[in-house]
Amino acid sequence: MASDNPSGEISSDALLDAARVFEERIPFNRVLGLRVESLDGSDVAVRFDMRDELVGNFTRGNLHGGVISSVLDVVGGLVAFLALLKREGVTSLEDEAEKFSKLGTIDLRVDYLRPGIGETFCAKGFVLRAGRKVAVTRMELHNEADSLIAVGTGAYSIS
Amino acid sequence: MASDNPSGEISSDALLDAARVFEERIPFNRVLGLRVESLDGSDVAVRFDMRDELVGNFTRGNLHGGVISSVLDVVGGLVAFLALLKREGVTSLEDEAEKFSKLGTIDLRVDYLRPGIGETFCAKGFVLRAGRKVAVTRMELHNEADSLIAVGTGAYSIS
Amino acid sequence: MASDNPSGEISSDALLDAARVFEERIPFNRVLGLRVESLDGSDVAVRFDMRDELVGNFTRGNLHGGVISSVLDVVGGLVAFLALLKREGVTSLEDEAEKFSKLGTIDLRVDYLRPGIGETFCAKGFVLRAGRKVAVTRMELHNEADSLIAVGTGAYSIS
Amino acid sequence: MASDNPSGEISSDALLDAARVFEERIPFNRVLGLRVESLDGSDVAVRFDMRDELVGNFTRGNLHGGVISSVLDVVGGLVAFLALLKREGVTSLEDEAEKFSKLGTIDLRVDYLRPGIGETFCAKGFVLRAGRKVAVTRMELHNEADSLIAVGTGAYSIS
Repeated sequence: MASDNPSGEISSDALLDAARVFEERIPFNRVLGLRVESLDGSDVAVRFDMRDELVGNFTRGNLHGGVISSVLDVVGGLVAFLALLKREGVTSLEDEAEKFSKLGTIDLRVDYLRPGIGETFCAKGFVLRAGRKVAVTRMELHNEADSLIAVGTGAYSIS
Repeated sequence: MASDNPSGEISSDALLDAARVFEERIPFNRVLGLRVESLDGSDVAVRFDMRDELVGNFTRGNLHGGVISSVLDVVGGLVAFLALLKREGVTSLEDEAEKFSKLGTIDLRVDYLRPGIGETFCAKGFVLRAGRKVAVTRMELHNEADSLIAVGTGAYSIS
Repeated sequence: MASDNPSGEISSDALLDAARVFEERIPFNRVLGLRVESLDGSDVAVRFDMRDELVGNFTRGNLHGGVISSVLDVVGGLVAFLALLKREGVTSLEDEAEKFSKLGTIDLRVDYLRPGIGETFCAKGFVLRAGRKVAVTRMELHNEADSLIAVGTGAYSIS
Repeated sequence: MASDNPSGEISSDALLDAARVFEERIPFNRVLGLRVESLDGSDVAVRFDMRDELVGNFTRGNLHGGVISSVLDVVGGLVAFLALLKREGVTSLEDEAEKFSKLGTIDLRVDYLRPGIGETFCAKGFVLRAGRKVAVTRMELHNEADSLIAVGTGAYSIS
């Protein structure tokens, strides 16, 4: 794979910018209350708290399936975006925004394993393979008791 | 497939109840602003309007991928629920609520075809096959110009 | 989408070549016994007969799930390949072979709806969207009684 | 989850029977040349060798995508079947055959990560969650150089 960034490293400033963009400038991420907790380029974790408006089944008080698919898509996109930055490097905030606009979800599979019950949730993701055009990622969602609630697999366009 | 409802018909009262439950009693559906428009047992349509908080990519102003996956999951769940009601019939509001609690998404695939740009969106769904335990459904999302934005396939537990 | 083939037409010679390649030069397609029946650029049908070695469940004598996923992948690849040829045109057999080498399945979802019972089966496919880099396709498999046995969705790399 | 087999153990005879059934009595598994290598109830590995008839792309000599999806489906089905046996126990060969007939793939996703090049391949699988009715599994395929060629996720009916 051709690379404009032979070291494969991303500055911590660029990572902080990416985290801020995901938390503050993507309106629906604010609705979900997502916080990027860890973002060192190979390990990504996004956290959010249960709130009334995120409930799906009113009789059980668990997370709406759409909240789960949304969060898994966000985490998959984030690790795919980091793979893109690692490959091409980042020269400025404008450059990072321009690279962000290249990112798109091609498709997503979500497997719902257990009801989304808990007080706080953590979604993690990693890249299975980043090619020239497409990154394939896997994601998972746990609650605070470390119960595995859902997993996902996504394909993202990164060029 | 065994059936407790040989006619396969659902009363219009039960359908109205189901629509009201999906719109009003599922908190995250209210966040999304979903309105059940058509629900005659074989044809289901759910509509919602673009709003600032549903945006994903702030540079393009399009729907967040998670809004799209959420709406497709809701529509798939709704047509799977109707398949369950058709098979078993409904005797009361309590009975309907009890049957609703049997419903669960097993897994979901979403294919993102075009950016979610538009003023109002319509998601439709239909059942590919309803078995004794699992219903498989297909869903699609169009904007007001009838551009196909995304499609989905879901497997739902209905027993 | 940029196009090197403004008419979007493919010569019938190029289509015949494509059909022959799929039937004769792909060894595992011969194991499956696939015959390309229709290939006019928008409508693709692939047919094959039940044979003992294609059986999965020996107690029921139905098609192996892997036969079903294989055939759906072949049909999805074929319609994605035609979308690539339509866009770029074909100048020679060598050119067609070179373009074929660009084609790759990114991912595939298969939904198994009914046991694969029958004497002869027909798989069809169509393109949901062909972009610059990725084509998304849907496929379905029927038996001779027109019973819908399985459906699939695939993403294919076409550049 | 109710269990008829509180110990959760399966006798080594029953495991050997299951392996033999998968290798010898499923005709298409013989076409693929599958050998069950490890089957201790929590770790399943299936191996097969490259052969001319398993080739997809004749210019590159790699595995057909359908061979890959077939093998991943087989491994997913095998780990789902073991989850079923663990839960319910096995009393006889007839009982095991009867339980085998309950098993069915609901759906399957395959992600193709790298060309299937190699001399011998190994597919492994594990259960993400086994419920009363449905087991969700993950599978992966490596070549002899331990290169990850493809991954899959499947939902299996186990009741």
